[in-house]
Amino acid sequence: MSIEDTAGHAVIPFGSIEGRSDVTRQPEDYMARALHLARRGLYTTDPNPRVGCVLVRGNQIVGEGWHELTGEPHAEIHALRAAGEAARGATAYVTLEPCSHYGRTGPCAKALAEAGVDRVVAAMLDPNPQVSGRGIAMLEAAGVGTRVGMLEADARELNVGFISRMARSLPYVRLKMAMSLDGRTAMASGESKWITGERSRRDVQHLRARSSAILSGVASVIRDDSRLTVRPEQLGSRSDSQAVQVSHERGVRQPLRVIVDSTLSLPPTASCLTEPGRTLVATISPIGPGALDNRDHFRRREALVAAGAEVVTLTSSPGGQVDLEALLHYLADVEQCNEVLLESGSRLSGAMLDAGLVNELVIYMAPILMGDEARGLLTLPGLQKLSQRRQLSIVDVRAFGPDWRIIAHPVNDQASS
Amino acid sequence: MSIEDTAGHAVIPFGSIEGRSDVTRQPEDYMARALHLARRGLYTTDPNPRVGCVLVRGNQIVGEGWHELTGEPHAEIHALRAAGEAARGATAYVTLEPCSHYGRTGPCAKALAEAGVDRVVAAMLDPNPQVSGRGIAMLEAAGVGTRVGMLEADARELNVGFISRMARSLPYVRLKMAMSLDGRTAMASGESKWITGERSRRDVQHLRARSSAILSGVASVIRDDSRLTVRPEQLGSRSDSQAVQVSHERGVRQPLRVIVDSTLSLPPTASCLTEPGRTLVATISPIGPGALDNRDHFRRREALVAAGAEVVTLTSSPGGQVDLEALLHYLADVEQCNEVLLESGSRLSGAMLDAGLVNELVIYMAPILMGDEARGLLTLPGLQKLSQRRQLSIVDVRAFGPDWRIIAHPVNDQASS
Repeated sequence: MSIEDTAGHAVIPFGSIEGRSDVTRQPEDYMARALHLARRGLYTTDPNPRVGCVLVRGNQIVGEGWHELTGEPHAEIHALRAAGEAARGATAYVTLEPCSHYGRTGPCAKALAEAGVDRVVAAMLDPNPQVSGRGIAMLEAAGVGTRVGMLEADARELNVGFISRMARSLPYVRLKMAMSLDGRTAMASGESKWITGERSRRDVQHLRARSSAILSGVASVIRDDSRLTVRPEQLGSRSDSQAVQVSHERGVRQPLRVIVDSTLSLPPTASCLTEPGRTLVATISPIGPGALDNRDHFRRREALVAAGAEVVTLTSSPGGQVDLEALLHYLADVEQCNEVLLESGSRLSGAMLDAGLVNELVIYMAPILMGDEARGLLTLPGLQKLSQRRQLSIVDVRAFGPDWRIIAHPVNDQASS
Repeated sequence: MSIEDTAGHAVIPFGSIEGRSDVTRQPEDYMARALHLARRGLYTTDPNPRVGCVLVRGNQIVGEGWHELTGEPHAEIHALRAAGEAARGATAYVTLEPCSHYGRTGPCAKALAEAGVDRVVAAMLDPNPQVSGRGIAMLEAAGVGTRVGMLEADARELNVGFISRMARSLPYVRLKMAMSLDGRTAMASGESKWITGERSRRDVQHLRARSSAILSGVASVIRDDSRLTVRPEQLGSRSDSQAVQVSHERGVRQPLRVIVDSTLSLPPTASCLTEPGRTLVATISPIGPGALDNRDHFRRREALVAAGAEVVTLTSSPGGQVDLEALLHYLADVEQCNEVLLESGSRLSGAMLDAGLVNELVIYMAPILMGDEARGLLTLPGLQKLSQRRQLSIVDVRAFGPDWRIIAHPVNDQASS
């Protein structure tokens, strides 16, 4: 359905309430539409944020757009091009403050003002403290009315990683685990294939596809010969969501693979080194007690680089391991990682949790019992008293086939209580 | 609201669709009402089944009743008394086949026929193979029309324990556990108080109140000095449900406490021995290798009996423990236990599961992490390969305050695969 508005421009039908002329649209409906558009970029915009924009005049959508791929125009530019002259006098609903910087397409704030847009409603300010509020100021200086904060919680959730990187120089870290109902991840022998079902594993592909990087420890990469890739065929069909469709059309992006490997023990024959995309091995300098001697370290490093890995040397923790907080700052600042998916064993997962570096736990629970001899979920050394337990807040519980997925957030650390 | 029907009898308003004259009632609506009435006896009818009855004439309820306490009239008798002459020509909706035996009030099937009831719809047949179908046959012989099987699944669920006892001479066993998100029940030290929150603990009181017995192992009874009682004040207020109200009015029934104690190591000072209700200590004969010498055993037995316990000697398993299946048969056949709540440690719980004696797992999962050093949920010895895992089917997941309760049923044992 396409309706011509008074100016002769194509009016784009409205997604969810399309064709229902009896429904009065509220400003929030347009912002919801902009968020819906923004989600199309879920798997492709990295490291840019996902942004959508809707231009409305006389209660009609006259143009809309969304950001698809870094290097391509921002959402506002797409929407302005779609609207053409109809942008004049329109209200722009945009899920993130329009930019004020001169990049490939010039500041979006300037473009909106020059197109004669009357008013800009932004779901949230730019989370980068260096530029936050400048786009709004640029618009107001040009005489454009502004409002900030509509459906802000939804907008923040959509770019939780980008916001984290901008505001804290840290990525948003999701810890993904698969366990039995009794909290076990593998048999004592290490056997762990197919604990969860196909629908859970497909959901993990979506988690990977939206992540900038997948983080794992060398022990579990060696044990499982992990590939740590997005498998396009498991990501789902084009009909599953527009974001999946876009991902398939533009070529599935492979997240950066990051392997914590203090001793450079990853074999150059590891499967992940021949997969499409980059593999980053994070290690520490061999100088210091307990480290390998220099020659051996550099020989291993050369072999890994020859096999396709990139090796980065980071500061060491007091325990002689890769400093995990330093690694995350590196991933945010140098690699521009927004969302990091931690898929590892109980040791690295426990250490990340203990260091307060995990923002979200995503646990797939299979309807099986594996017994007390099987391997546990998390190594949390020093937890002796119940008062030291780690408190979580469970925010989402839902079925994936026979399995259940639990999403939980760590609550203010109680380790000191 | 009370409406007079044509015969001048009080018409009892219909629960859920009361006052909605535009709603056409289906036969299933009346059976649902009868089930609703039956549920009022959830905490009081033991060892009898929970039964409700609704008498309907001309699309009006002319009488209804439910079974409240063993020794008191059955649901049908209450309903017939309420209806009086209006029962003539009515259809009776009853959640269980009317009885055919001559007990305190004579066979209900006979009473229904003599009152002139035209037709009887039963949700299910009597599960006792000795009498199943006889009530229906008695009705048909008296010229009353019958139908069996309406809302049968709901009716079976309401009396799952009674059905189990009648059909298998075994109670329906629920295994209740409280754990952290990572499947831990206690710190390594044994510290385990208050893992779950108040709303979960209140739900456990309801599980206890509907059970004929609470089963535990002596080790966990000693460790926690468990009382294993229903705490009336924690069962909830009268407004929570009609079943709770009835329970408060009739005096809260204490389930039989059953303690598995092969070596009679329960101290006579144990708290549970001074609680209201009975405590049954299940032990084995001291004769045989590894058992205590006779004199000591009988001295302990005397001390326990003097302290208020009842001690029963059962057959021994090959491992020199109480034979758990024999215990459950004893509870069903001698103690008339319908539903048994297993609240114990990982060892007895694991052994019951391994023996295929658990019908349902009720797991309260707290939003905390306790780490790999804490105690696990279930001891399942000999589980070495993933193919030996115990398969469950998760049938219900819901929030209780910050905790989540998971109900699961064991699926055909795969231990042999």
